[in-house]
Amino acid sequence: MIELALVGIGTGHPDHITRQGERALNAADLILIPRKGEGKADLADVRLAICSAVVTTGTRIAFFDMPVREGAESDYAGAVERWHDAIAEAWLAAIAVHLPGGGRLALLVWGDPSLYDSTLRIAERLARRTALRTSVVPGITALQALTAAHAIPLNAINSPVTVTTGRRLETGGWPAGADTVAVLLDGRCAFRGLETAGVSIWWGAYLGLPQQLLRHGPLADVAGPIARLRDSARVAHGWIMDTYLLRRSPPAP
Amino acid sequence: MIELALVGIGTGHPDHITRQGERALNAADLILIPRKGEGKADLADVRLAICSAVVTTGTRIAFFDMPVREGAESDYAGAVERWHDAIAEAWLAAIAVHLPGGGRLALLVWGDPSLYDSTLRIAERLARRTALRTSVVPGITALQALTAAHAIPLNAINSPVTVTTGRRLETGGWPAGADTVAVLLDGRCAFRGLETAGVSIWWGAYLGLPQQLLRHGPLADVAGPIARLRDSARVAHGWIMDTYLLRRSPPAP
Ligand SMILES: C[S@@+](CC[C@H](N)C(=O)[O-])C[C@H]1O[C@@H](n2cnc3c(N)ncnc32)[C@H](O)[C@@H]1O
Ligand SMILES: C[S@@+](CC[C@H](N)C(=O)[O-])C[C@H]1O[C@@H](n2cnc3c(N)ncnc32)[C@H](O)[C@@H]1O
Repeated sequence: MIELALVGIGTGHPDHITRQGERALNAADLILIPRKGEGKADLADVRLAICSAVVTTGTRIAFFDMPVREGAESDYAGAVERWHDAIAEAWLAAIAVHLPGGGRLALLVWGDPSLYDSTLRIAERLARRTALRTSVVPGITALQALTAAHAIPLNAINSPVTVTTGRRLETGGWPAGADTVAVLLDGRCAFRGLETAGVSIWWGAYLGLPQQLLRHGPLADVAGPIARLRDSARVAHGWIMDTYLLRRSPPAP
Repeated sequence: MIELALVGIGTGHPDHITRQGERALNAADLILIPRKGEGKADLADVRLAICSAVVTTGTRIAFFDMPVREGAESDYAGAVERWHDAIAEAWLAAIAVHLPGGGRLALLVWGDPSLYDSTLRIAERLARRTALRTSVVPGITALQALTAAHAIPLNAINSPVTVTTGRRLETGGWPAGADTVAVLLDGRCAFRGLETAGVSIWWGAYLGLPQQLLRHGPLADVAGPIARLRDSARVAHGWIMDTYLLRRSPPAP
């Protein structure tokens, strides 16, 4: 029997982890850390820094090589399915080596395990192959790191918020009926395709990390500067993760 | 000068607090805890339990009486404005007594300070009256506590999520274009007013607290049982806080 703890670690700052997360990591027999290969943003060092900051017990740490996703734009859903299958296989292989008799396994999940993350879906695959009990420890999301860094509320008073992806914003435009839109997973600055009238943006990159960047202002004024800053930061660091909040004011009728 | 730290504490479990939150509470000169009066869900004891679990320095703790909001349904926005003004006055009065020369003040904010919480708006009022620098420490939201307890993702793969209130769901119905709807602040089981076809619900009350309740299933089957369980739990405990996720499947065209 494997007891799997998916531990949300927040967005890069070791102090984002909760006391519950600390306990789960310390209670584990094994922590598995993914490696994506040279020059990639695998953030294995951030995960190791978190472990070394909080693990005070005999928990072992092992690495596994993260399978690479096919770049199939034609069959995006199929490529994701096959990628998740491959990750489940990689977990199983690592478990066979490092935890052959079963035990408590912890995985460090970026942000919160519920938000645009596939770990829970991969755990479901594992459960079909081996006896598994999964628990989730919530963590600070990139959106919370964003609103905290800007010291702003997520929602307008009593108003809804639409959380969506760059891909959706690009293809679907401003979500129907939304006043506030929070966007993750945007590699192409989808905010540049929007009507700017009355829209403000609060943007953040590398939130919680030493190289954190923040910008905000009327979308009409800052969309271009943010896109340029994003480009140069991505070149400088070799990778980027960014997220943003858009608010339309006055609210849609 | 007041340095105000708004510290997200999660939803009731002392282990929801982050290392960053622990540090902020320990770095403060003063922690102010609101009291709402006998028999109310002021949760002052939960806040005290968190302080006693994590504060190891000389931080002082003081209480202030939370002003009561008028029950003006006719002028809801005005009543909320006046209530926020009154809370800002209560903070100022407490600061005058307990931190007359300025210093570091921390407030424990339920969940995350960005989500359906007025503390940031009250801090803005304070900033108009006194020299103030505000920082925010993110915390685990009720939604994250919900998805973690059920071990489910918030979003369907690459799909948006609408976060809204019971009031909005009741008046506006199922949000346009949404597949997943997350609802807070629902005192009247607004889910009972929805078309149930294809909709599932994941519901949680007192998340993170010893009396935590969880239910899930097709909305058609569990809406009634959840509403009855909610009523009896509210009577038994004298108060209730609950939140839920609704997912429509197959997704809207
Ligand atoms: C696969 S999703 C995972 C989200 C994560 N589970 C969470 O709760 O934040 C990755 C996206 O999260 C956002 N993100 C994650 N970490 C970030 C950071 N440190 N700064 C800015 N955005 C971040 C970016 O939008 C990125 O494309
Ligand atoms: C004023 S809002 C504050 C939300 C908070 N800032 C957060 O991040 O979760 C209060 C609402 O949050 C939800 N909530 C807060 N704590 C909860 C808990 N322990 N269990 C279930 N729902 C909770 C309920 O929907 C409640 O009506």
